[in-house]
Amino acid sequence: MGSTKKAASKKKFVYFFGNGKAEGNGTMRDLLGGKGAGLAEMTNAGVPVPAGFTITTETCNLYYANKRKVPVGLDDQIKTNLVKLEKAMGKKFGDPKNTLLVSVRSGSKFSMPGMMDTILNLGLNDVTVQGIAAATGNDRFAYDSYRRFISMFGSVVLEIEKDIYEKALSAKKRELGIKLDTDLSADDLKDLVMKFKKITREEAGKDFPQDTMTQLNMSRDAVFRSWNNDRAIYYRKMHDIAANLGTAVNIQAMVFGNMGNDSGTGVGFTRNPSTGENVFYGEYLTNAQGEDVVAGVRTPNPIAKLEEEMPAVFKQLHGITKRLEKHYKDVQDFEFTIEKGRLYMLQTRAGKRTAQAAIRIAVEMVKEGLISKDMAIQRVLPKDLDQLLHPIIDPKADLTVLAKGLPASPGAAAGKIVFTAGDAVRWAEELDEDVILVREETCPDDIHGMEVSKGILTARGGMTSHAAVVARGWGKCCVAGCEDIKIAEDGKSFEVNGKTFKEGDWISLNGATGELLEGKVQTMDPELSGEFAEFMNWADQYRKLKVRANADIPRDANKAREFGAEGIGLCRTEHMFFAEDRLPHMRAMILATEEEARHEALRQLLPMQRSDFKGLFDSMQGFPVTIRLLDPPLHEFLPKREELMLEVAKLEAANPDAPELEEKKKILSRVQELHELNPMLGHRGCRLGISYPEITEMQVRAIAEAAAECHAEGNKVVPEIMIPLVGNVLEFKDQKEIAERVVNEVKKEKGVKFDYQIGTMIELPRAALTADEIAEQAQFFSFGTNDLTQTTLGFSRDDAGKVIACYEEKKILKKDPFQTIDVAGVGQLVQMAVDKGRMARPNIKLGICGEHGGDPASVYFCHKVGLNYVSCSPYRVPIARLAAARAALEEKLAAKKPKAAKKKPAAKPAKKAVKKAVKTVKKVKKAVKKAVKKAAPKGK
Amino acid sequence: MGSTKKAASKKKFVYFFGNGKAEGNGTMRDLLGGKGAGLAEMTNAGVPVPAGFTITTETCNLYYANKRKVPVGLDDQIKTNLVKLEKAMGKKFGDPKNTLLVSVRSGSKFSMPGMMDTILNLGLNDVTVQGIAAATGNDRFAYDSYRRFISMFGSVVLEIEKDIYEKALSAKKRELGIKLDTDLSADDLKDLVMKFKKITREEAGKDFPQDTMTQLNMSRDAVFRSWNNDRAIYYRKMHDIAANLGTAVNIQAMVFGNMGNDSGTGVGFTRNPSTGENVFYGEYLTNAQGEDVVAGVRTPNPIAKLEEEMPAVFKQLHGITKRLEKHYKDVQDFEFTIEKGRLYMLQTRAGKRTAQAAIRIAVEMVKEGLISKDMAIQRVLPKDLDQLLHPIIDPKADLTVLAKGLPASPGAAAGKIVFTAGDAVRWAEELDEDVILVREETCPDDIHGMEVSKGILTARGGMTSHAAVVARGWGKCCVAGCEDIKIAEDGKSFEVNGKTFKEGDWISLNGATGELLEGKVQTMDPELSGEFAEFMNWADQYRKLKVRANADIPRDANKAREFGAEGIGLCRTEHMFFAEDRLPHMRAMILATEEEARHEALRQLLPMQRSDFKGLFDSMQGFPVTIRLLDPPLHEFLPKREELMLEVAKLEAANPDAPELEEKKKILSRVQELHELNPMLGHRGCRLGISYPEITEMQVRAIAEAAAECHAEGNKVVPEIMIPLVGNVLEFKDQKEIAERVVNEVKKEKGVKFDYQIGTMIELPRAALTADEIAEQAQFFSFGTNDLTQTTLGFSRDDAGKVIACYEEKKILKKDPFQTIDVAGVGQLVQMAVDKGRMARPNIKLGICGEHGGDPASVYFCHKVGLNYVSCSPYRVPIARLAAARAALEEKLAAKKPKAAKKKPAAKPAKKAVKKAVKTVKKVKKAVKKAVKKAAPKGK
Repeated sequence: MGSTKKAASKKKFVYFFGNGKAEGNGTMRDLLGGKGAGLAEMTNAGVPVPAGFTITTETCNLYYANKRKVPVGLDDQIKTNLVKLEKAMGKKFGDPKNTLLVSVRSGSKFSMPGMMDTILNLGLNDVTVQGIAAATGNDRFAYDSYRRFISMFGSVVLEIEKDIYEKALSAKKRELGIKLDTDLSADDLKDLVMKFKKITREEAGKDFPQDTMTQLNMSRDAVFRSWNNDRAIYYRKMHDIAANLGTAVNIQAMVFGNMGNDSGTGVGFTRNPSTGENVFYGEYLTNAQGEDVVAGVRTPNPIAKLEEEMPAVFKQLHGITKRLEKHYKDVQDFEFTIEKGRLYMLQTRAGKRTAQAAIRIAVEMVKEGLISKDMAIQRVLPKDLDQLLHPIIDPKADLTVLAKGLPASPGAAAGKIVFTAGDAVRWAEELDEDVILVREETCPDDIHGMEVSKGILTARGGMTSHAAVVARGWGKCCVAGCEDIKIAEDGKSFEVNGKTFKEGDWISLNGATGELLEGKVQTMDPELSGEFAEFMNWADQYRKLKVRANADIPRDANKAREFGAEGIGLCRTEHMFFAEDRLPHMRAMILATEEEARHEALRQLLPMQRSDFKGLFDSMQGFPVTIRLLDPPLHEFLPKREELMLEVAKLEAANPDAPELEEKKKILSRVQELHELNPMLGHRGCRLGISYPEITEMQVRAIAEAAAECHAEGNKVVPEIMIPLVGNVLEFKDQKEIAERVVNEVKKEKGVKFDYQIGTMIELPRAALTADEIAEQAQFFSFGTNDLTQTTLGFSRDDAGKVIACYEEKKILKKDPFQTIDVAGVGQLVQMAVDKGRMARPNIKLGICGEHGGDPASVYFCHKVGLNYVSCSPYRVPIARLAAARAALEEKLAAKKPKAAKKKPAAKPAKKAVKKAVKTVKKVKKAVKKAVKKAAPKGK
Repeated sequence: MGSTKKAASKKKFVYFFGNGKAEGNGTMRDLLGGKGAGLAEMTNAGVPVPAGFTITTETCNLYYANKRKVPVGLDDQIKTNLVKLEKAMGKKFGDPKNTLLVSVRSGSKFSMPGMMDTILNLGLNDVTVQGIAAATGNDRFAYDSYRRFISMFGSVVLEIEKDIYEKALSAKKRELGIKLDTDLSADDLKDLVMKFKKITREEAGKDFPQDTMTQLNMSRDAVFRSWNNDRAIYYRKMHDIAANLGTAVNIQAMVFGNMGNDSGTGVGFTRNPSTGENVFYGEYLTNAQGEDVVAGVRTPNPIAKLEEEMPAVFKQLHGITKRLEKHYKDVQDFEFTIEKGRLYMLQTRAGKRTAQAAIRIAVEMVKEGLISKDMAIQRVLPKDLDQLLHPIIDPKADLTVLAKGLPASPGAAAGKIVFTAGDAVRWAEELDEDVILVREETCPDDIHGMEVSKGILTARGGMTSHAAVVARGWGKCCVAGCEDIKIAEDGKSFEVNGKTFKEGDWISLNGATGELLEGKVQTMDPELSGEFAEFMNWADQYRKLKVRANADIPRDANKAREFGAEGIGLCRTEHMFFAEDRLPHMRAMILATEEEARHEALRQLLPMQRSDFKGLFDSMQGFPVTIRLLDPPLHEFLPKREELMLEVAKLEAANPDAPELEEKKKILSRVQELHELNPMLGHRGCRLGISYPEITEMQVRAIAEAAAECHAEGNKVVPEIMIPLVGNVLEFKDQKEIAERVVNEVKKEKGVKFDYQIGTMIELPRAALTADEIAEQAQFFSFGTNDLTQTTLGFSRDDAGKVIACYEEKKILKKDPFQTIDVAGVGQLVQMAVDKGRMARPNIKLGICGEHGGDPASVYFCHKVGLNYVSCSPYRVPIARLAAARAALEEKLAAKKPKAAKKKPAAKPAKKAVKKAVKTVKKVKKAVKKAVKKAAPKGK
């Protein structure tokens, strides 16, 4: 080991920073660790951080190479640097008159939360504590700091269980009959210091060291040891960090803002984080330490006051923070302390901000030339745009959270509780009340009641339940699957955590968080700023994906246009059938036993549908409109089975001769006939159109006649007819033949020519698996990822709430697959369908119309697999636009960095591999298909 | 065209056959067509077919080359051959005294049902008809033949609509007030002949030709023309048959069995087609024509009688048919006619036979050295074995079919109708009645009632509905989804096609056909012959797939062993919980609000489950047993929601103070909590074990304790623990960890060491898509193709009956995908999972336990994709064994025929392509996975 010692003794183990100069710099992360390099960089940049020094990572490696002993020469270098530190700070380590205290922190190349806790106030002992008390004029502060240091040192360095100190503290408080630590007096704390020292002696078998140099060296060694504690090893393993990097040790002077009226402490932002306005923003306290701000005993002053009290310090602070903003090209959130007129910056980091502020800051920084548009786009999170488009809970309001459900549709609302759609309509329209509709779950029957309510609360159902989807489409606030509320049997009240709420009581909802709030809470309406439009305009220049909206009626379509939608990706025709004037015809059609009666009901519906489509075409002038043919099972249009059963049973018991009984029984009988155990997998989608071709005929005729009218008026609409739930190309062909025939009939009748497309939803695994066959027939695919998720994962979206919650808790699922697309499963099928579809029909149009179309992470996926567009609720259109822009930008940036890529060998082959893989996959698709066909059963 | 004529005149256009010698032979299919070559071959082989001649296919091509004119010289050759024919038959064409009649048939190289109808009795005219009448002594026969010939000639040759003749016939019958053609007298028929000739004149614009040579030439030309009629062109297109092959024309003498007592006609088999016994078998009528046998006016004699009546003819017939059997190496079904003591063979073909006969014949023919074992295996259809294993409807019974449902479980049963499981138990056990349980659909609650019933009839549900699956498991007859029966509201009767059946009325079921039969129909029990065992033994030597059974209780397991099962592929543990002594504990567990109460209920269930498993292990000595952990949603163990709602509502109305009301409401409340809109996609499978780990713990403990007991007793069982409904490897890991911990605990407690495996069902698309990840954790996969079909196709098996029926009718589906695996969709996923699974774990054990495991076509698929075993209901085990053998045999034979393969270029690359494709697929799997991962959303 002699040679090691010798070599080591010549090495530079310690790098100093302070007084505006550092021996290291920002590039030396390998040697000084991330934290040490950062401190050196800040110091060199003229930021007045408290002085200190860093012991290198190499030293740590030598410590391990040398059987856990520090190399010879280190102690000397530490002593030398300590002297420099004392000089820089004008204090002395261990000197009771003018005490220098230090912090000790670990710091490796990569941030490792698994490593050592920070030790603060190192240098305190029975003597120096009195010096601090005198300097701050605050006995209580000094002894509180001391008792904290002892327990920190005991637990971190001597490995005594923290709990033992905590218990002694609790016992003391119990003895005094007080609850808060802040209620302890200076004498109480002195007593605790005695107790803590006793614990340390008993547990560690030796006294708490009074020698400050011993404290320092022991702490240094504890940092080295922490590199190989269980937590750190586990963390490195999890994050693939090499074990031979070692950790540095940072020793830095402590500063105090409570050393008189020329001292103080504060926090601030370089711009207003709430509005984004470019003003210096913050608050501070004179003669105070950080803890005082947190304890909330004194009210801090606005930062402007500092300019009056200490103009030089203010000017210096303002200058430094502006420089930091320029340096980091972002709003800075900083902490500072003034010790006897001298400013120290303790921390600076990118400031958190509201979405409104984020946009304004990004736009203004671009104009100031501080950042590029690329950077501006990266600065705003798509999901935060929700805040801008919906009302929010007044941030100043006092809240009582009663329960938490799923944040199914953003926004905030307050209203009186109603329990039925009928009551909602009556209260809202006749009595002009604000109401919140509370239901176990909603169904299409409830549509009108949902429409007049301020918000919707359901006890069951997930992020893509009926209530959630409909509410999001309208931009209406909804909390779904709030399992804690128990609706009473009579349906006139609900209970939540022991409290009962009756019809007419006020409640409020926060759709952004899923919170159910007690009483009437103030909400604030959104305002769209000029910067918003400008920012979105920039975003649009980046994206490759088109963004369309899911909209069923002109009102929603217009809203979607306002938000920048470039067409309708999904019009659900069934939503139109629930309107009051149509439902009777729909029911007549379903109840018809003769074909002629069914045709007659459809004839009644035809002109209504035609005018629906005409309205959509009109509001979407020049943009494509995709219309999906009838999708839900027919029983959705009839009363609910169990309700009808109960009604009939009650009626039979009470009044068996009631004239309505016969009719109700007839309906019940049809409802029973149509009843399905798993309606999601039942008689719906194109299966309806195949069983009842006359429904397809009527709907296609309505589309074609509306298109003909538009063309006659000069609006060259190109309707896209979408056949739902296709799993077999023959289903598609069946419906396509009907559609083509009817469109041709209408063209002839009206003497108008127009283009149209016929395509399908890809929403069953089998459709994705056989997408090549389907693409030979279909002109476009729209991925219905809601249903595709249901079938691929075997999760009913209406029932999955509880299971998904349990899975998220158990870390089986990272994200709700109904919110963010499941890439490994559903995504694999989408990728397959994209490849097979394009192989069979290279110009096929590909889009997505599931709820994922408005989820940023899913939009990213859609961009990556190369869809043509995404379609989402009108209120999510801006989110999708921004997410699409960011996906395209990220791709552009990644393509620009070939050098960086070379440095990281792991990342290098990725893009090429993707391309190559996709190519190879395409090649073997045919072979696989052949192979599978070969393996097909023959008639045995 | 001169040259064509010249060339043609030298050509041989006509080939004669007759008198034991033919100019052509069996290899001349190109020139003589399939039929012509066959007739030549039979003639050369000494089979006395009526003489005739064949006009070659070349002639047909010359006809077309020559603007639809026959080549010069043809007419002469026909005349020459006609003279030979007259000589051979001892009759003269057009001679009223001794009339030769002929048939004219088309016949190309490949059989083409799309071509021309046969013309019979050609040569009849107003004069010869009298000759036939005299020769047969049967005016009626002669004129009936004549009127048939006129209409046939008119429609086929003169292209008059057949309907016009039919209408005239109908008018005649109406006029006479008779219903059947056989009621027409000779005079009526003479009158019809007049009418038919008139029609012919009016429609064709010319008289029906009385000249027999004209009849012949016109018919010949009609055959040539028919080569290019629409039907034939369409058929060729569909079957990829070249248009330039041309058709031959076969002209053959007609013979008559009604020419006196030295004439006759009959049919026969070379062995008994019902039992397989090697005896000459058949029946005949003296002085009769084929029609007489069909009309059923006279009772035919057994063939033995012919030996007395015409010993020489009998000997000749016996000799010929035995020779034919040897020649074709199969039982022959033949038709013959004796004309004035001369025997003619009209037809011979492979005879249809019962399954019992098929096996006996195959086994005996192997022993006789007539066929190889390979051939024997190919001679028996797996699905026909069902006949051997279940009772059948007595073939002699008179049947009234009331309705047709799905043939859900084979067998036959008669019993009195009961409508509830409770009534079934009471009637069967207390009153000792045979009952048939009739339900809308069955649920696990009905199990005990199903068990005591002779058969089960449901109005709803498909081939894999609860009733179907359970019944097949027990080998019990079941007709499911019989939509025509309407069960009355009071549940005490049902209506079917206007008839009403009450509780206690007799009905019968044919599970093999799905027929519901009126009254008590006689059934016959099956008997398993020695040949059966021998045959199955041979089959076992071929197959590569192992065959296991799905069995839940020792009784079923023993049955499965009897049928040759090599283990249990699926034990559904939930079936055990429905037993009377267990359900209360199960319900207590589900209703428990405290964890402790749940644990207590589970403790009660533990010993019962342990003894269940012990029983299975005992009966499966030495064979593997796969036990699936609890799968169905918990609400299946509670009363039905709507029934409970009705009960509570009625009770509340009638007696609100009833003491049971509180309890019922409590259960209802839990049922409501557990209610799911789509239980198939709900809280079931491993999701239960993840939410309630204590259930998994109890079940695994029961398995491990039972295994420990077995090992202590010397039975080295290796239990396979199967985690159901996994879609995500983390689900599997969660349950695997619990299982491993519990097994280790038990091993320690009992001090016994034993091996076990933990694997999973692949029954969700996502499981197949991520099979590589799952295989890293799981030791085996069992494909649950029922659920995989449900999710991949989006069909609920309980609801799909109607849709699938509609799809089969519209030709969208060829086969019910719940019966035969959907290769293009579900099969693609299975293939993917097999490849990915083996890639990640080369020795992974792969099986199938869905209902497809007993379907021959699906077994073929399982063999092709290389599974290790199939598992099916005990009663389908022999079917699966034979199907597996045939799949392996087919592969072996295909591999042996490299020359044959070379001749058919289309088939050549198939096997190689499969191998290559599978290999390439494996290679790119990794690349694809990488690509998909790359495209994964990042946290935005």
